[in-house]
Amino acid sequence: MSGKHQVVIIGGGFGGLSAARRLKNVPVEVTLVDRSNYHLFQPLLYQVATGALSPANVASPLRNILKNQKNARVLLAEATGIDAANRRVTLSDGTLDYDTLVVATGSSHQYFGHNDWAQFAPGLKTVDDATDMRRRILLAFETAERESNPERVRALLTFVIVGGGPTGAELAGALGEIANDTLRHDFRKIDPSEAQIILLEGADRVLPAYPPRLSAAARRMLERLGVTVRTSGFVTNVGPDGVTIREGNRTETIRARTILWAAGVLASPLGRALAEATGVELDPSGRVIVEPDCTVRGHSEIFVIGDLANFSHQTGAPLPGVAQPAIQQGRYVASAIEKRLRGEEIPSFHYRDKGNLAVLGRGDAVADLRGFELGGFLAWLIWIFVHLLYIVEFQNRLLVFIQWGWFYFTYDRSARLITGKSPLPLDL
Amino acid sequence: MSGKHQVVIIGGGFGGLSAARRLKNVPVEVTLVDRSNYHLFQPLLYQVATGALSPANVASPLRNILKNQKNARVLLAEATGIDAANRRVTLSDGTLDYDTLVVATGSSHQYFGHNDWAQFAPGLKTVDDATDMRRRILLAFETAERESNPERVRALLTFVIVGGGPTGAELAGALGEIANDTLRHDFRKIDPSEAQIILLEGADRVLPAYPPRLSAAARRMLERLGVTVRTSGFVTNVGPDGVTIREGNRTETIRARTILWAAGVLASPLGRALAEATGVELDPSGRVIVEPDCTVRGHSEIFVIGDLANFSHQTGAPLPGVAQPAIQQGRYVASAIEKRLRGEEIPSFHYRDKGNLAVLGRGDAVADLRGFELGGFLAWLIWIFVHLLYIVEFQNRLLVFIQWGWFYFTYDRSARLITGKSPLPLDL
Repeated sequence: MSGKHQVVIIGGGFGGLSAARRLKNVPVEVTLVDRSNYHLFQPLLYQVATGALSPANVASPLRNILKNQKNARVLLAEATGIDAANRRVTLSDGTLDYDTLVVATGSSHQYFGHNDWAQFAPGLKTVDDATDMRRRILLAFETAERESNPERVRALLTFVIVGGGPTGAELAGALGEIANDTLRHDFRKIDPSEAQIILLEGADRVLPAYPPRLSAAARRMLERLGVTVRTSGFVTNVGPDGVTIREGNRTETIRARTILWAAGVLASPLGRALAEATGVELDPSGRVIVEPDCTVRGHSEIFVIGDLANFSHQTGAPLPGVAQPAIQQGRYVASAIEKRLRGEEIPSFHYRDKGNLAVLGRGDAVADLRGFELGGFLAWLIWIFVHLLYIVEFQNRLLVFIQWGWFYFTYDRSARLITGKSPLPLDL
Repeated sequence: MSGKHQVVIIGGGFGGLSAARRLKNVPVEVTLVDRSNYHLFQPLLYQVATGALSPANVASPLRNILKNQKNARVLLAEATGIDAANRRVTLSDGTLDYDTLVVATGSSHQYFGHNDWAQFAPGLKTVDDATDMRRRILLAFETAERESNPERVRALLTFVIVGGGPTGAELAGALGEIANDTLRHDFRKIDPSEAQIILLEGADRVLPAYPPRLSAAARRMLERLGVTVRTSGFVTNVGPDGVTIREGNRTETIRARTILWAAGVLASPLGRALAEATGVELDPSGRVIVEPDCTVRGHSEIFVIGDLANFSHQTGAPLPGVAQPAIQQGRYVASAIEKRLRGEEIPSFHYRDKGNLAVLGRGDAVADLRGFELGGFLAWLIWIFVHLLYIVEFQNRLLVFIQWGWFYFTYDRSARLITGKSPLPLDL
């Protein structure tokens, strides 16, 4: 190690990668640590799970992104702990010293204390989650085609998505299109359009973070795609045969062989490690409560950004766990490091909300652009434009654009491969 | 089932799929049985293993290919046996009656009685094989970057490819490009161009099925890419630390952490099942020795085509185990079925050898076009044209073309993701 100021960034998601890139011309040495060798464009991961895109279209090798940044190196490693007193990160196979630490390890899904549900209702956080989900969805149709018992066929053709936020709503919309359009002529015994797609949301409307008018529009779009939207219900059990929900005093079991989990956020375990090391407070989801400059109280050399951070100084509530706050915090942290090295004052972080977008079907999306609400085709065009813009690599922009264009005209999702565990015998 | 003539085709590779498609306007009902839900464009699988293409670029869903063919259905199932007396195929979960049976289940690699080598030296037959190989190759570089012991770094940066046929030679060439070009600026401690890539071939030249002049050209191309070509040596042991080879009286162990297997063909086990059911003879590789009309002796209703068939009537030797004979046999069988239904004579199968192509690097290939030998850029252009032409789906043609063009100008292989088993701790 040279004598330069060492910045260690844990996590190569939107927050960590933005920080690393923005440090390009700052006189520091950057080490980006990640368990995966790629940056994942998470907002499009549901398109991998539903066979529209390939994993490589939404994931770019971190080394490739940073190959020409001389002051940055990438370490494929898992950070397991933080020794704040000695400014050292513990890895699963070593240690790493820092002068400034940026923790951006994000979050995963949680089952509210029912971790045994995970095997029946997988969530969507990694590339492997997405190919596993894709396998389950496609195998359900394949198994239904081979099944003669009508009741079992019905359970095989029932898909329940738990959680009506953006990921759940987008998954449900994509499943509606798969059943009604993509697979339309693919089978000889079953009619895929008879599949039931049920979206469950605990709040009284889907996309609860959006304005009510857009939630209503999203619901209409989903229903047009054949999705049954059920709100104000709580999942009380998940098993191999289906989901039990409670709505008011009523309890009901939906028989379904495919259950997809898009609810419950749990901060990365590195938040807990940080709390133990520094005494910083965590919120109930395990997020680190940060100062106005995104640092940990009493440790101005440790920044926490993105999904792992609870930054409530601006609105009183934590910022949403989406890409924009993470990207802006990453850039902010880089400039804060630069300013500090120069001995300048560091202003507080200020989030500029550029709005929210969710796509629900081919040509259908909702956009909440800072008070300017939009639903339908124009929102969909904005969604496409914004997402292509933010994909890191130009080649992927081109490939994604072609595949979307192709899909728009043919409904064909060419990446619907059953891979991973051997699909036979047909058993989900 | 209706009263129509039932054609059951086992295997959705080049042979089986060609037969199914060519039967489109023949008054039969076609059932295509495959363990996978996709047709795999095997000649490009090595490009998935080396991160240039995504699995979905070289694999098309069988249902999609046949969706508009009214007389065809696809069954995701594994055929385990054949009851020739009752004209019935045994599946892992049922049975299937046929009037005409086409067996096209191909081959896999074999370790010449050393099946324990498989764990150290994986082969390349399926999409999952390819992503596993990709993972091993990329993890070797990642682990070397973290390793301080120079001897272990050297073993991690040594790649041995066993088998100098087209797959082995193409893999070796691609590895040469990865080490020297793609990963050039990716690492900070190791220099990927110091990687050793060793191609082992038992015969006295690589691509032994090609004319000697092209073998020599291929060797020069590989050596330009930094590949060490070693011929006339036999592998006597494969273990976690390397490969032992015998050359004449000399035995040598090459320390290597990544060993890729591209040798040894073993026919599908359905050949044995067929031999037990009909008494047909198998050759030493387990291939079914077929009649001049590709049928099984004494069973004119059973055809065997592609890699599983030993068809020696034309040249005295079996046809090569590549795409062309399989495609031509598939089409032949379809027309034979049509002729037989009409009561017409069936001519013998006649293979038209269109030549062989192997690509060894960016802009470098060898082509053996029926006596017309070609090496270099023009051969590479022909290779590209022919391969794009034979990819089944138009969308994939477009995507592959863009990715090749991108690669040609940037050396970037964007699909180099480490997926599958958790890559951590870094341990191959």
